[in-house]
Amino acid sequence: MIPEKTPRHPGFFVTVEGVDGVGKSTQVDLLCAWLEAQGIAFVCTREPGGTSLGEAIRELLLCPSGPPVADLAELLLIFAARAQHLEQVIKPALTAGKVVLCDRFTDASFAYQGAGRGLSQTALCTLESLVQAGLQPDLTFLLDMPVTDGLARLAKTGDPDRLEQLPSDFFARVRQMYLTRAREYPERFVMVDACHQVNAVRDQLVGILRGRLGRE
Amino acid sequence: MIPEKTPRHPGFFVTVEGVDGVGKSTQVDLLCAWLEAQGIAFVCTREPGGTSLGEAIRELLLCPSGPPVADLAELLLIFAARAQHLEQVIKPALTAGKVVLCDRFTDASFAYQGAGRGLSQTALCTLESLVQAGLQPDLTFLLDMPVTDGLARLAKTGDPDRLEQLPSDFFARVRQMYLTRAREYPERFVMVDACHQVNAVRDQLVGILRGRLGRE
Repeated sequence: MIPEKTPRHPGFFVTVEGVDGVGKSTQVDLLCAWLEAQGIAFVCTREPGGTSLGEAIRELLLCPSGPPVADLAELLLIFAARAQHLEQVIKPALTAGKVVLCDRFTDASFAYQGAGRGLSQTALCTLESLVQAGLQPDLTFLLDMPVTDGLARLAKTGDPDRLEQLPSDFFARVRQMYLTRAREYPERFVMVDACHQVNAVRDQLVGILRGRLGRE
Repeated sequence: MIPEKTPRHPGFFVTVEGVDGVGKSTQVDLLCAWLEAQGIAFVCTREPGGTSLGEAIRELLLCPSGPPVADLAELLLIFAARAQHLEQVIKPALTAGKVVLCDRFTDASFAYQGAGRGLSQTALCTLESLVQAGLQPDLTFLLDMPVTDGLARLAKTGDPDRLEQLPSDFFARVRQMYLTRAREYPERFVMVDACHQVNAVRDQLVGILRGRLGRE
């Protein structure tokens, strides 16, 4: 018997992860367009954010002129936004059988607040367990490229937010943690080389998602 | 040998607790006036709040026209504000040997989010341990009176915030949890009957604080 993950739901939970500048948001938009064209019921959302409370928290966290935020306070704010997001958006959509496509989720906390900021894995696991109570993504796309390439792309897009102003060794640690987690959870992670052209990456993601949703 | 609490500091950490309407803020002001008159170095602060991040979080939590907040998100926001407060205000002041006088602290989370909202003691203990790492108040004043008396006082003061709009059985559970914690932690809790006149309550609090600070 294959052990079933708990809690189970009729939906399908997809997260998209990667270091800043890998083209994550573009690929999320392209996946949405594909889901739309297929007539698949879905919800597209993002973290931190996804609810009005979450967006207010996002503003506190990312606005360069915002108040000082201690590392542990940052982590707790992110999980507060996540608790609201799960309750108000993600769980209802999964219960209704929808696909939930989420731009960043808890793997980002392990990468950014854990490896990046240096907060303990224990603190992260404790909060993950408290807030998710066993709920995990069914599929996580990790868009990967060398950190310098991602940051160079990012530099072209305009004013950096508070996280984007961090030094490049911060992002190197973030990338390493993403790669570590992809190895630790091979059943849900799919790593994609984000150095390819946008449409090539999109085709690869769509091909995998199509298969996992049984739309072949 | 008396086991020492860890982490130790040269300051003295006083919290003031009680159900809404017991006259907590008035007594905090009077204690400040006494500390000032004695020439004792102190910091007066409050939760949720006490930092610019904390005050922004307080606004999210208490503003009746704010976004919806799930119970667990509320708890995490309160502990995020607390993490910032400890890092930026409370620990530096204690390390500098000051008295910290704080209007509400973690006992309020056990009372309001635990007993009031029905969140588990486990979740509360987990967050307390993560954020405080063993730091506890040296003295906690619990101002106590029947819930109906407190709410009647409160009704006279103007527009209620989001918490104050809750039904009276919520506050009855909050009071019971405060009383339970006062019994569980007799070494730091001092319960004071808040039905007495303001100055009589003030004299009792000052007498106890004076003794604990060795100012007799």
